[in-house]
Amino acid sequence: MLPGPTNVPNRVINAMLTPMINHRSDDFRKLYKDIVSKTQTVFETSNDIVVLTTSGTGAVEASVVNLIKKDDNVIIPVNGEFSTRLADLIDNYGGKTIRINSPYGQNPPIEKIEEAFENNSRIKALYVVYNETSTGTTLRYLSKLGDICKSHGAFFVVDAVSILGGDELPVDKWNVDICFTATQKALAAPPGIAPISISKEAKKYMIENPPPSQYLNLKRYFKYYNENYETPFTPAISLFYAYQEALNIIIEEGLENRIKRHTRCANAFYSGLEALGYTPFAEPGSRSNVVIAVKYLTGIDDKKFRELISTKFKVLLAGGFGELKGKVFRVGSMGEVSSYHVMRTLSAISSSMSILGVPPIKDGLSVANDILSK
Amino acid sequence: MLPGPTNVPNRVINAMLTPMINHRSDDFRKLYKDIVSKTQTVFETSNDIVVLTTSGTGAVEASVVNLIKKDDNVIIPVNGEFSTRLADLIDNYGGKTIRINSPYGQNPPIEKIEEAFENNSRIKALYVVYNETSTGTTLRYLSKLGDICKSHGAFFVVDAVSILGGDELPVDKWNVDICFTATQKALAAPPGIAPISISKEAKKYMIENPPPSQYLNLKRYFKYYNENYETPFTPAISLFYAYQEALNIIIEEGLENRIKRHTRCANAFYSGLEALGYTPFAEPGSRSNVVIAVKYLTGIDDKKFRELISTKFKVLLAGGFGELKGKVFRVGSMGEVSSYHVMRTLSAISSSMSILGVPPIKDGLSVANDILSK
Repeated sequence: MLPGPTNVPNRVINAMLTPMINHRSDDFRKLYKDIVSKTQTVFETSNDIVVLTTSGTGAVEASVVNLIKKDDNVIIPVNGEFSTRLADLIDNYGGKTIRINSPYGQNPPIEKIEEAFENNSRIKALYVVYNETSTGTTLRYLSKLGDICKSHGAFFVVDAVSILGGDELPVDKWNVDICFTATQKALAAPPGIAPISISKEAKKYMIENPPPSQYLNLKRYFKYYNENYETPFTPAISLFYAYQEALNIIIEEGLENRIKRHTRCANAFYSGLEALGYTPFAEPGSRSNVVIAVKYLTGIDDKKFRELISTKFKVLLAGGFGELKGKVFRVGSMGEVSSYHVMRTLSAISSSMSILGVPPIKDGLSVANDILSK
Repeated sequence: MLPGPTNVPNRVINAMLTPMINHRSDDFRKLYKDIVSKTQTVFETSNDIVVLTTSGTGAVEASVVNLIKKDDNVIIPVNGEFSTRLADLIDNYGGKTIRINSPYGQNPPIEKIEEAFENNSRIKALYVVYNETSTGTTLRYLSKLGDICKSHGAFFVVDAVSILGGDELPVDKWNVDICFTATQKALAAPPGIAPISISKEAKKYMIENPPPSQYLNLKRYFKYYNENYETPFTPAISLFYAYQEALNIIIEEGLENRIKRHTRCANAFYSGLEALGYTPFAEPGSRSNVVIAVKYLTGIDDKKFRELISTKFKVLLAGGFGELKGKVFRVGSMGEVSSYHVMRTLSAISSSMSILGVPPIKDGLSVANDILSK
């Protein structure tokens, strides 16, 4: 139950048994075209799609090196490990971040973002980490930011690494210029490749202003895809097959159903955990549907708790990052997550609490079960 | 019979069926430590090893962004597509290449490299593409370059993407500071990850002078490995399992036996193809043991020939790159390559020649068979 890599369905794992093909062959072109088309469906976009052979961080970096030049002003809300990393990366590459800091677990009011646009001229882009995996916090007003960017002539970049496929993110409807994710999170494929969508305007900019990078140079990816449905460098072919199968599963379930399932499981987790005595780390209205972070109860030691639940109940939970280390635990509720996973996880947490001498306040399992049965 | 991705043994493909694990777990740490140790065996080095989740090009770029700073002088022999790309990349990142150009298929005399060191002060590094995949040309005096670099206080960087595991490259003995390859070539694993070795001196430099990049920042990889035997970003776990099994196969065969097998198959290819009437593209003494490139005979059309041999004989051959397009064809003779592959390929080439009305001059198959039987 980690926030990635998540469990991968057998169908997806088995797809990797497909024999190796040449990445300059019709077999590969067919595979890549199909992946691009199905990724467009899942991203709800008609934008160009590039699939990088990297982890999510490679896609994050591609979104920066292809767009941000020296002294470009970039607005970015910062409230956790991953938004801090992204802001640092933009600065490393010579950009000038205007950071809208808010306490971990909270998002800044949208007015702060609007103010930043008004108080600064020539904003090149707004970067947003949609779901802050380190704190289980989701930016719930994401849908409104695309229009703000548009009216200020800024690019809108959404880091959707841990969330895409598990929550709403209609790229075209929300006017997102660059959106990227990684396959090992809510898409439930193995790690190693990262899809990115790029709007016409962003693509035009990237083609006219290519970065020094070869490997992350999206201009090259556009060229190879447009001319031949290929990637410029050898792709991780086995992982492409796996990702294709993961996309098939998503499309079979239907994106709407899939998001509903994630929301239902998250609601059951939050209510069940609250009944057990926990407080979610994220404030109401900012709670993630894919990463559930709650504060530890007094008397429960992080290391002991997670070791116990792992060895005795075979359930893996994640701890906190940086300043949250030892203060929160996190449950990945994404990808294949179902009633079974929610109930088994809550049951393991509940039993572990009793073993550690901090018994649950209420019966979290029946609370969760009620929500799951609706 | 392509110069990568090569055929992958079933044992290696099946290793990808191992269930997904957490990349922050002991299971992963054990896997990564084992991969690092076995990569050291295959690279013949005690240097640090980093395994990137990228194609070979990602490793090429990592070798540049972590070492080359603005206005650094870099000597590089250029005689093909991949050495040109590498030289361009160094310049893109602000380095100043001193290019020792030689005609495609030839290597410059070693004196030219020595002269470049003498005629230029403050040389930061010598970069060498050991095997130029685009032309089937190998730099046969590589063993001598490490000492030249050492005496001039320059780093020695070897791009061994298409060759490592198929020809001699004892990293420590030859004083190579940075050496990298990709898994889908002579190592016979699927594409998507790229191992790099880094000497103590190069590591020290990289730690003191980290680049703006996050994803290719080797300092981060050193830290995560030294502290926890982990990678800083989510690795392509399934491909790590596959690569581990590919390394097991190499170690079972023995590196020396493996290189002998590659040399024997290459000799059989060259002699067999010459008997059929072809001239190798690379000059004698520079011919690759892993990529066999020969000039087309008059009357044989590249496209027709490779289509015929692919559809009728199920043998895939590669064409030429850039200015060599239509002028040469290339055979990947690497990884699993055996007598069977050599004979089947030569037989298919021989038959296709007859079908296209340009029959073989001599019986290339018996010539090759004699060499393979020795």
